[in-house]
Amino acid sequence: MTVSVEKFAASNEPSYCFQATVNHVGPQIVGGRGLHIDIEKDGKVYKDILDGVTGAAVGALGWGDDEILEIINRAAKESTYSYAPTISNKSSEALAKFYIEHSPPGVFSSALWVTSGSESNENALRIIRQYYLERGLPNKLKLISRESSYHGFTLGAQGISWNPRIAPYEPYLMDQKNITLKMPVAYSYRFKKNSENEEQYSKRLLDILEKMILDNGPETIAAVIVETLPGSSLGTTPPPKGYLKGIRILCNRYDIIFYLDEVMCGTGRSNPNGKLNCWENFLDPSEGPDIQTVGKTLGSGYVTIAGVLVGPKIKDAFVNGSNTVFGGHTYSSHDFNCAVALGVQQKIARENLTANIFKMGSLLNGRLNEKLLSTDNIAGDVRGIGGFQSVEIVKNRETKEVFNSKDNIIGRLRQLCFENGLSIMGMPGNPDGTCGDRAIFAPAFIVTEVDIEKMVEIFVKCVNSFSKTLKQERIW
Amino acid sequence: MTVSVEKFAASNEPSYCFQATVNHVGPQIVGGRGLHIDIEKDGKVYKDILDGVTGAAVGALGWGDDEILEIINRAAKESTYSYAPTISNKSSEALAKFYIEHSPPGVFSSALWVTSGSESNENALRIIRQYYLERGLPNKLKLISRESSYHGFTLGAQGISWNPRIAPYEPYLMDQKNITLKMPVAYSYRFKKNSENEEQYSKRLLDILEKMILDNGPETIAAVIVETLPGSSLGTTPPPKGYLKGIRILCNRYDIIFYLDEVMCGTGRSNPNGKLNCWENFLDPSEGPDIQTVGKTLGSGYVTIAGVLVGPKIKDAFVNGSNTVFGGHTYSSHDFNCAVALGVQQKIARENLTANIFKMGSLLNGRLNEKLLSTDNIAGDVRGIGGFQSVEIVKNRETKEVFNSKDNIIGRLRQLCFENGLSIMGMPGNPDGTCGDRAIFAPAFIVTEVDIEKMVEIFVKCVNSFSKTLKQERIW
Repeated sequence: MTVSVEKFAASNEPSYCFQATVNHVGPQIVGGRGLHIDIEKDGKVYKDILDGVTGAAVGALGWGDDEILEIINRAAKESTYSYAPTISNKSSEALAKFYIEHSPPGVFSSALWVTSGSESNENALRIIRQYYLERGLPNKLKLISRESSYHGFTLGAQGISWNPRIAPYEPYLMDQKNITLKMPVAYSYRFKKNSENEEQYSKRLLDILEKMILDNGPETIAAVIVETLPGSSLGTTPPPKGYLKGIRILCNRYDIIFYLDEVMCGTGRSNPNGKLNCWENFLDPSEGPDIQTVGKTLGSGYVTIAGVLVGPKIKDAFVNGSNTVFGGHTYSSHDFNCAVALGVQQKIARENLTANIFKMGSLLNGRLNEKLLSTDNIAGDVRGIGGFQSVEIVKNRETKEVFNSKDNIIGRLRQLCFENGLSIMGMPGNPDGTCGDRAIFAPAFIVTEVDIEKMVEIFVKCVNSFSKTLKQERIW
Repeated sequence: MTVSVEKFAASNEPSYCFQATVNHVGPQIVGGRGLHIDIEKDGKVYKDILDGVTGAAVGALGWGDDEILEIINRAAKESTYSYAPTISNKSSEALAKFYIEHSPPGVFSSALWVTSGSESNENALRIIRQYYLERGLPNKLKLISRESSYHGFTLGAQGISWNPRIAPYEPYLMDQKNITLKMPVAYSYRFKKNSENEEQYSKRLLDILEKMILDNGPETIAAVIVETLPGSSLGTTPPPKGYLKGIRILCNRYDIIFYLDEVMCGTGRSNPNGKLNCWENFLDPSEGPDIQTVGKTLGSGYVTIAGVLVGPKIKDAFVNGSNTVFGGHTYSSHDFNCAVALGVQQKIARENLTANIFKMGSLLNGRLNEKLLSTDNIAGDVRGIGGFQSVEIVKNRETKEVFNSKDNIIGRLRQLCFENGLSIMGMPGNPDGTCGDRAIFAPAFIVTEVDIEKMVEIFVKCVNSFSKTLKQERIW
């Protein structure tokens, strides 16, 4: 029996997939070229939607890249699956070498390739646990991550995350009292006091962290885990000045692993020097993380790949200890995925696309700031680094009051943008008012000035007209 | 800068990948065609190794299948990445429909595609949690899985697993006292008493399960989780007669989800009717699971895909409740992966390869039984279903005493097989003697009688000569 993909499962029919609205097929992607996608929705095809967010900040090269299609054909021919913990392959080594060499010298010395950002964080936790066992420190167990953070959809990754949607799963998470401690997130727009400058806000946060380390006993703390630039969780809130450096210093002082999650913000999306890591905006190479997770633009959506980068401190402890990782994922170091991801990264490096997206993203930030915040509308804050930008929506620009989450503000704005030819990510605010709805932008690295102006034009028009609608509805 | 894959990372050099022996490149796959692979090891290339296990029971079509290479080219051209919880695609719907329609009618009504077996089990747990919340039963929380089980490498999946290598990670797992309860595994070779027949052994195990349910209170039990045919965890030990039916009855009696893990044994590897599910060996369609995880042969190694199949009981509770799954993985329902997996499954169905592997696997079982157990050597048990077979190695066939795990018996046997041109999986026994070393076979579905005879010939020769060596070394 041959199933024809074309003949069924149009949008607006019953769905066979257990996701989103369970019994209904929602919008479907039916084509993509460069910065544009075609979407079928309720039986109608919308052509040439401008893709402002590449799914979930995944796309770097744009869609349907001819060179990558060729690389896929070649990789499929030349690669063979094997269970990498037993029999590995050359593509995974080559991709690891590439990432290490395109990061500041000495920061990373090894990499593990897995198939999702969730898995990358799960494996980072496993590596950290074994690291302390190799050193004979089994009680260095506790993981300090942040409130309002997101590290993945699997239960281990959810255990170090926190947002309102995790609460129902808490019984299935790691011990939230004794193992996964949460410190406040750095979120200047809402929580930096007017009386503080950035350094003072950083110091306040770092004092809380240091007190937490001392209260628990530094000999019990394994790692401090931070998204360099939080993505969907808070909407690209840059760390305040001195914050990441301060964490690095505390980690050094108390022999703690400094763990950065760059699944969403890393791998070229927001690097100022045409390289890979977001933390290079804030840290010298000597201050880099001990372990880092990456994903998203690594495979640029063509293949499902993510990874863990391991620094010499951790690698050396393993090599001087058992020198062995037992077991692994069926699809770790997947030959085909690694070969395609390497092709993607080589093209990005050759065409200097990281520098382009940093410049274009900064332009996007500037234009949105200028156009949105100069007039009266529901935009409260425009922020981000390089190719990763957000607009936080508020009911009151002065008080930063958020909309009631029941009003589905971001869902409606996102739909309006879509109808006007622009795809963005929309994240709902926290019901407790600690974070507003966010519109998130993460275009492909090939974006041009003309594309940016078009995105700004559509988005600003939609925000203004939607603001008027909300006024008429007496919601705003 | 262009990295040439060929010019470095030969085996026997320092490694950039954080796996296996951390600072050293082990064997690498450098080619594959059909049932044969080429392996580079310590600088030497071993050509045309007969692949008895397809990595980790992953391969169904064999390597370098021309039709699949064509499908990959087409899928790459026709698919576009999107974040499926927001914008989905037709391939994921088509693959879900295919799997549902190739399973007994009425058993499954929905599917979620993710990128690994670990993720499939993580998502099954999430779905089960939400299922009871949709029904207003938040206290139905406890998960009964089995000792000596393996459900994946992520922390949530490890929480429902149990084997000696999980112990170091216990602080990072779900509450092992109050949430993830463990019942004895069904393991006839070691734990069925001589005085019992299979049904009596099943009844003894089912009585333990029912007592566990009653002692905890059925209103606290969410799911019973079983690998239909345990793979790497115990070596393809078939469930005793009446065992799975008995679990189904208890799940019905106490309103508990019946959850089968078929990541390794499912999707055509061991189905007697030319279809997909392993449980069809033991259960009528009306007795099928409420939720099931799958992976491995689904993408046959060409793409990294796995899934959760959801029955109407669970789907209906969602549809009658919120009808919504919030969030998801970046790479869930990945358009390209789903399109390729569908091509793989269509080819398997069209060429009736599931029937072939069942027949060939049964032949393998028969020949290994006949050739190994008729002479004096270290083989203790030959067992399995269809294309998934194991040989358990013992020091004493009468007492079933296992070898000391320090003697690395299976590692040495596996190496000897490799040198003689056969690749198998080798799993070490439990140090506490509750399970011996196992050699595991899971060839591609295209295997022929000639291939099977060759596998048996090499393996039997190696077992016999290795037995002699161990005698000389006074280990056996």
